This record gives sequence, structure tokens and C-alpha cells, in this order.
Amino acid sequence: MPTAAGRPRDPSVDKRISRAALLLLRENGPQAVHIDAVAARSGVARTTIYRRFRDRSALLTATLELFVDAPFPAADLPVEDKLRWVLDQVRELVEEQLGRGAIAAVLADSDPAFSTALRARLRRRLEALQVQIDADVASGRLRDGIDVESLAGVAFGAYLGEALRHGRVRPGWADGVADLLLRGIST
Amino acid sequence: MPTAAGRPRDPSVDKRISRAALLLLRENGPQAVHIDAVAARSGVARTTIYRRFRDRSALLTATLELFVDAPFPAADLPVEDKLRWVLDQVRELVEEQLGRGAIAAVLADSDPAFSTALRARLRRRLEALQVQIDADVASGRLRDGIDVESLAGVAFGAYLGEALRHGRVRPGWADGVADLLLRGIST
Repeated sequence: MPTAAGRPRDPSVDKRISRAALLLLRENGPQAVHIDAVAARSGVARTTIYRRFRDRSALLTATLELFVDAPFPAADLPVEDKLRWVLDQVRELVEEQLGRGAIAAVLADSDPAFSTALRARLRRRLEALQVQIDADVASGRLRDGIDVESLAGVAFGAYLGEALRHGRVRPGWADGVADLLLRGIST
Repeated sequence: MPTAAGRPRDPSVDKRISRAALLLLRENGPQAVHIDAVAARSGVARTTIYRRFRDRSALLTATLELFVDAPFPAADLPVEDKLRWVLDQVRELVEEQLGRGAIAAVLADSDPAFSTALRARLRRRLEALQVQIDADVASGRLRDGIDVESLAGVAFGAYLGEALRHGRVRPGWADGVADLLLRGIST
């Protein structure tokens, strides 16, 4: 059902478009998200889509905007609980929001426009996380001098490493990772 | 050039076959490794390949056997140097031995036979690493109670997380990761 051409700013049409794109992304990976497929899936005319999204990159960016960021945990929660929350956010992003095909595509760089859109989204989220970490350093809950990029990379990667090695994530995997990151390995 | 049919145990033919498979793997990912493609690439007849490798799984396993494991670093090296060595081994495995397409395929589980073969290979390597870690715990260089699966997952994943976020690995990325894993994040 194409929308009426006279309502270029109807936000419900935007949503129908980006929701269709999100379903295609989850089911078949980023390569499946292109204007023709989104038109077919959403029932919105191609011309209407092009009027709203300059190109496929803009559509991908809008699609990733649909993810609702969970609020950060309460400031006075123990660091261990916050770390587990971060690990669980990664799990949710990979398994429920993006799908593994999307992560695989970014690693293999098989869809550069999608890689760029996802990295921009992740960067914004990490900037917000950095603010939380700074507060925990200031209050003495975290040691000073932690490299946030490394922490994010390790937390993200810990999940991918587990998925790579075992196909699925074993029960309790976060326990070992949290212990390692909290205490380190040195005596 | 097909080999003479009368020499079924000529090891150089095995090598030609698995080397061709390895090139296909690196260039185009595991999906490109199948008997027809290997026959074309190696110049070895399909019947000869089937005589040596029961099926595609056996061929994939033999291909991964071509990776030469670097010897573990000297036992008396500082833990930090050993950790950097592990991180560098991961980089080499992903970028030089397998190629990112292979890692992406395992994450997306797009080629189950390859996933199985790679996981078996990784498991053996980690068992050997476990022996090294046990020795470092015994000599008091590493704290007791480190979950080795978690350490391996984190070290592996740290690289994938970096590749995912930045496309490439930034200079000095291993510094932050090593610091984090050695000392942990807690005050």
C-alpha cells in the first residue's frame, strides 16, 4: 500500500520503511537491505523511499536508530554488576538487534556502507559509556588509567570469541570474563 | 597435471591438494573450498582427491593442519610478553592464516563443516596453551583460578572487537588490552 504522495513528512511512513529494513537486516544480513527489497517488504513506493532517504547509507543509518538503548545501570551499583550489564548489552546487540550475519559482514567488510553506519552508532554509544566510566573513576570504583577503547573492545570481543569458539554462548560465560576483567591475571 | 593413479600415498599430492584448498579459503572464504574448485586449482583429478579425502570435512581438516603453530615463548619470559605473544598469534591466525572471511563464516555459521573443523583445531591449540598457563600458575607468575576458556575467549575476542570497531587494528591496540588483562579494572 503506497502512501499518499502529498504527505512527505508522515513519520509513520518513515517507521514502516525503517522497520522493514530492520527485519531484512536481521533475517538476511545487511546485503539484503536495499531500496527495492525495502519497498517490497514495507509496501511503500520506491519513489517515496528515495524522497525520504537520500541513499542506501541514509536508510541504514535510520534503521540502526531504531535500536532502543537501554538506560545505564544505577551509579551506585557494584562495578561487577555494571560490567555484567555491559556484557549483556553486547549479547543483546549481537543476537537480538543486529543478528550475527550483520556482525560477520562488518568483520569481512562485505558491505562498507553498513560497516560505516554501525561503527558510527557504536561510537556514540561508547562515548556515553565513557561518561559512566569517568564517573566511576572519579568516585574511586574503577582504577584510573583504564583505556576505554580497550575495555569496550575486550567486552565486545569476549562475546564474539565465545560465539566463535562454541557457536553459542555457554551458561556462565560472563562469570569468567567478568572475573578476568575485574581482577586481571597477574599475581 | 593429474598425478599418476598408481601412487595413492604420494605425500606431495596431499600437499598440492591442501595448499590449493588453503589458497581458496584465504581468498574467498570457506564456501569456496569444495572438491571441484580444489581439483581445478591444484590440477589434481577429482577422483584422486576423493581417494584421499573421504569428504569435504576431511579436506577442510587437512587444510587447517597446514598452519604451522609457532612455538610457545620461553617459560621465563615476563607474563606481559607472553600475553602480547598470544594476542599476536590471534592477529596472525585471523589476518594471515585464515582470512577474515573465514572468521565471519564461523560467526554467521554459514558453513557448519568448516566451523567444526576450525573449532577442533582451536581446541587443540588451547589445550597446549593451558599447559603453559598451568606452569605459570605453579611458578607464581599467574594468579590461581584464572578461567582459561575466558582468557582465550577474551584474547581472541579483543582482536575481533578491535577489527569490528575500526576495520583495522590500531597501532598500540595490544598495549591497552594487555594492561587491562594483566591488572584488571578494579581499584
